Amino acid sequence: MSKLSIAAKRMLVGRPFRSDRLGHTLLPKRIALPVFASDAMSSVAYAPEEIFLVLSVAGVSAYSYSLWIGLAVALVMAVVVASYRQNVHAYPSGGGDYEVATTNLGRNAGLTVGSALLVDYVLTVAVSISSAASNIGSAVPFVQTHKVLFAVVAIALLTAVNLRGIREAGTAFAIPTYAFVVGMAVMLVWGLFDVFVLGSDVKAESAGFQMTAENSHLYGIAFVFLVARAFSSGCAALTGVEAISNGVPAFRKPKSRNAATTLLMLGTIAVALLIGILVLAQKIGVKIAEDPARQLIGAPEGYEQKTMIAQLAGAVFANFPAGFYFITSVTALILVLAANTAFNGFPVLGSVLAQDSFLPRQLHTRGDRLAFSNGILFLAAAAIGLVVAFGAQVTQLIQLYIVGVFVSFTLSQIGMVRHWTRLLAAETDPAARRHMQRSRVINSIGLVMTGTVLVIVLITKFLAGAWIAILAMVVIFVLMKLIHRHYASVAAELASEEDWDAVLPSRTHSIVLVSKLHKPTLRALAYARATRPDTLEAITVNVDDADTRALVQAWERSDVTVPLKVIESPYREVTRPVLDYVKRVRRDSPRDVVMVFIPEYVVGRWWEHVLHNQSALRLKSRLLFQRGVMVTSVPWQLESSKGTRPVDVSHAPGATRRGLGEEAPRS
Amino acid sequence: MSKLSIAAKRMLVGRPFRSDRLGHTLLPKRIALPVFASDAMSSVAYAPEEIFLVLSVAGVSAYSYSLWIGLAVALVMAVVVASYRQNVHAYPSGGGDYEVATTNLGRNAGLTVGSALLVDYVLTVAVSISSAASNIGSAVPFVQTHKVLFAVVAIALLTAVNLRGIREAGTAFAIPTYAFVVGMAVMLVWGLFDVFVLGSDVKAESAGFQMTAENSHLYGIAFVFLVARAFSSGCAALTGVEAISNGVPAFRKPKSRNAATTLLMLGTIAVALLIGILVLAQKIGVKIAEDPARQLIGAPEGYEQKTMIAQLAGAVFANFPAGFYFITSVTALILVLAANTAFNGFPVLGSVLAQDSFLPRQLHTRGDRLAFSNGILFLAAAAIGLVVAFGAQVTQLIQLYIVGVFVSFTLSQIGMVRHWTRLLAAETDPAARRHMQRSRVINSIGLVMTGTVLVIVLITKFLAGAWIAILAMVVIFVLMKLIHRHYASVAAELASEEDWDAVLPSRTHSIVLVSKLHKPTLRALAYARATRPDTLEAITVNVDDADTRALVQAWERSDVTVPLKVIESPYREVTRPVLDYVKRVRRDSPRDVVMVFIPEYVVGRWWEHVLHNQSALRLKSRLLFQRGVMVTSVPWQLESSKGTRPVDVSHAPGATRRGLGEEAPRS
Repeated sequence: MSKLSIAAKRMLVGRPFRSDRLGHTLLPKRIALPVFASDAMSSVAYAPEEIFLVLSVAGVSAYSYSLWIGLAVALVMAVVVASYRQNVHAYPSGGGDYEVATTNLGRNAGLTVGSALLVDYVLTVAVSISSAASNIGSAVPFVQTHKVLFAVVAIALLTAVNLRGIREAGTAFAIPTYAFVVGMAVMLVWGLFDVFVLGSDVKAESAGFQMTAENSHLYGIAFVFLVARAFSSGCAALTGVEAISNGVPAFRKPKSRNAATTLLMLGTIAVALLIGILVLAQKIGVKIAEDPARQLIGAPEGYEQKTMIAQLAGAVFANFPAGFYFITSVTALILVLAANTAFNGFPVLGSVLAQDSFLPRQLHTRGDRLAFSNGILFLAAAAIGLVVAFGAQVTQLIQLYIVGVFVSFTLSQIGMVRHWTRLLAAETDPAARRHMQRSRVINSIGLVMTGTVLVIVLITKFLAGAWIAILAMVVIFVLMKLIHRHYASVAAELASEEDWDAVLPSRTHSIVLVSKLHKPTLRALAYARATRPDTLEAITVNVDDADTRALVQAWERSDVTVPLKVIESPYREVTRPVLDYVKRVRRDSPRDVVMVFIPEYVVGRWWEHVLHNQSALRLKSRLLFQRGVMVTSVPWQLESSKGTRPVDVSHAPGATRRGLGEEAPRS
Repeated sequence: MSKLSIAAKRMLVGRPFRSDRLGHTLLPKRIALPVFASDAMSSVAYAPEEIFLVLSVAGVSAYSYSLWIGLAVALVMAVVVASYRQNVHAYPSGGGDYEVATTNLGRNAGLTVGSALLVDYVLTVAVSISSAASNIGSAVPFVQTHKVLFAVVAIALLTAVNLRGIREAGTAFAIPTYAFVVGMAVMLVWGLFDVFVLGSDVKAESAGFQMTAENSHLYGIAFVFLVARAFSSGCAALTGVEAISNGVPAFRKPKSRNAATTLLMLGTIAVALLIGILVLAQKIGVKIAEDPARQLIGAPEGYEQKTMIAQLAGAVFANFPAGFYFITSVTALILVLAANTAFNGFPVLGSVLAQDSFLPRQLHTRGDRLAFSNGILFLAAAAIGLVVAFGAQVTQLIQLYIVGVFVSFTLSQIGMVRHWTRLLAAETDPAARRHMQRSRVINSIGLVMTGTVLVIVLITKFLAGAWIAILAMVVIFVLMKLIHRHYASVAAELASEEDWDAVLPSRTHSIVLVSKLHKPTLRALAYARATRPDTLEAITVNVDDADTRALVQAWERSDVTVPLKVIESPYREVTRPVLDYVKRVRRDSPRDVVMVFIPEYVVGRWWEHVLHNQSALRLKSRLLFQRGVMVTSVPWQLESSKGTRPVDVSHAPGATRRGLGEEAPRS
């Protein structure tokens, strides 16, 4: 992938770009589709399978409901796509659901969406990678038996790649995504043609098994509940649809129109694949059991249930093994891309939340890779935790997944309805009013639909695991509130007039800290003298009599004219005697500002930090607690510092989907 | 313990002491004995047991050799004590074996001793705590079945206590140590009187079992090897004897004489206990098998072999259960104290090694608790690793233990022989010469003895685990050499004349970094003006157009006279644009020194660091790589910073055994 991405970068982006060329890097629809759609499309790899799996509880006869459930999911998909097409027109800034909710419903709604999305990103990684493991496992038995290990290694690799900061090259997304779509389309068309037109007797490997119901006596409410649960799981196909609404600024102009079109393409493809898979799977007799060992009768000893995609590919390409391997590979690949999406979306959302002071502020200025690194490591750790805790079982993880998505969908649609209502109140032009009313109807339908699904999901999934996701959302919500409150109280503290002495300090008293008489000390003395302080003195702490004696002698022999004071330290420590000395200086002349010069080594290797400057750093951090004291670091660059360079920002994760660092104006 | 230690501190140390009262805190012999001897005395808790255990391989008849082995160990102990009495007279500075080896044999010998002792401290913790777990386990079955858990928790507790920094209160040591010595003495005297004088039929709980030999056909070399192995294990009784030689400065005057006397007391008590235990154990038929389940016939189902001390106490105090519980408790307690010794000795040795530039230098200035914390955490992690890896089995761990001790003994004795030889070459006074010759003879005997034991230990233990300890010693040795080389090369770099421009910078160009116009910024501007630079300007990085516009407007409205420059940042990052700007300033006027003022928030809570200053810190660390640049932090103390205080040093681990921070002159 790395070589490919470099080649892709060359092709797509050309030479390292400058800020005035940013327009060149915006995405055409054919590239934007794979960049933003891999998450949503990849969900057809597990959504139909989960429908079958839930229905299996009531026995094979319940499979006849799968198509209806699929159609219901497709209907929801159509409504959601139609609604989000309104979103991208109304909010082209890329703020997505968070912005829609915040603008129209206030801060708490926005924060709810924000926490839901953060939790969702973690689950996207966990679910996608677990599903990728199952799909590869269907072709490679070793992976099947070591799914957790595989998933953890895959997440670790993704983390490493994103920490190094690969650019999301559009083509690197395009090739596997289109390969997946084309491969799936060929498989489905070929398969459906074969069975329905040619009337071939294509059979899935599990077609011959008998499946016992876990509970064949489900009637009435219980059966409705089961179907509703299958529908909830199927709604996993909708995860990732909102991604485009976060990425409008990265599209070529007309941005909103192009984004809306891409959204429509995404919805069409996803629905077509979903329905195709469900029809074909039922026709060729795929059986997916919740508990294969108990439910599948007639399966060979040690039968490992394959994924639905793998079973379809195995049956359709029974005489063409390359086809089978191609389908399982591209399925796994698009799932990995979907997981990578979260690695890009997480810092972008973090940046937006940080701008509004809900997360540490340094996440906003996207300068240093460190800020991303922390987010990426957090995301990876949480995802690995989930994968390990749930044994990389998609079926288990999916219970946590969908609630966050639909919380965000529903709040976003409420916000959109409010948005149109507000605009309608001010609008008088009949044509514009008609247009807005139409949009409001679409978003209202979207609201009813997503709200209903949210209720169904909550009812059918809460005890099965959704409570974990909700709990995580609540914790993140509270944490963000607390961070916001902290920043607000600091801002208030800084704005208040008390405790502020605007008068200029009358004099400067400079102190150079000395441990040895060597070049860093001489430079510190020279720089300190260059600032022409009113008083300048050098001090040293006597932690070792012999050393101090040698220093004093060297000082007297040298041509340094600055006086050297020796401070005694009974406990051989540095910090407190210096603090006491500085306090005394402050007490004696409170109108002076004290400037402490600390010679510091600048080193190039991380382990050298352990060997140098530690005492100076601690002293510095204590000195800063003193009023009227400045601390100046006078660096001495050691040889090893020569090779180090600051990091290049343009490769930071999430750059592509923001239009390569272009700053979108926020409405 | 904490309450006790506070009470003890009050009693022993009185009010918080000042440097001129340090003499008051030195230890009398009756307190010094427990402070320095708990390690050595506690080893009688496992050494005799290990002798029995090794001999058990050849069957119960081999137990008849145990007394002879005990006498051999006692002989070694006598010789080692006699030798170290010479050490404490010749080197009263507390440098111990490291100093003796370095002074007389050179740096590599000293480093070898240093690495051996560092490894030893880790093993002291692992062995002592594992043995404590076995002893408590003999009274409390739950601990017996969860030995590893117990040991890990105990080490974690010790770590926590030492990280908080309890003072090693002398009395806190005295009470359990004397309780152990008195308890053991009462048990042994009572038991021996009972069986030998009264002729009672006291029997250990394992006396009735038959013990099958693992290998009853050991003859010739193989049997000698077995006995030698038992002797090696028995030599574990000598661990900790050298502790007093590291603690001479903490004794009352005459320091060396008192230390030598204490050493003699320690040796006498240890030998008496060791021999007493061996005699009584054999007499009442204690059986300790290497593999109890296979070797002990007649033992009840699920019999858990108790420690030798517990079996003795159980038999002697058969009608007095409180006696049994008392003995097992104080045994466990003194073992925990022995482990605590390592937590104190480790930083002290680290400080000495750091002073000679073999370890990071900040370990030398004992000011900040952080330096100790790192050492303590390292020690704890290594000990926990060993305990887990070896299942808290004393028998396994002891294979690693003794080699380090005897490496250090042997090198120290070689050093002492050289020491006397050197002195003799210069000495002419016949009385002094006689005295020195006598000392040299004692140390020579010590050398022969410890060297012989070292060879025996190496032969009998190498494959059983000593290789691990040796490997660890080699790794530490190499690491310390590399650290020393690094410091040396930095010193050479700093001493060289090239690359140094001693001319004073001609002018100062001051830059104040601004993000908002609030009190921290105003203070930074005021302080920057107080230094009267030749040029003063404020710069801000435009990471957000709206924010920047607001700042510029506020600046124009305010009465700040310093000009504000806006630097563009295409990627919304702060570091690089500022770096580029500073580089440009340097290029335009290379004789200027640039002073960058960064307003910094000073916070009081650790988590606030995450929320503030991160960008400033990163920018600062990059700026320091520039030539001719100083970075000045102008602190703004937030409310939350008010409560924080620097840490009190006098409570740092190891304070007591150094004479409470008194700095001993190094010869």
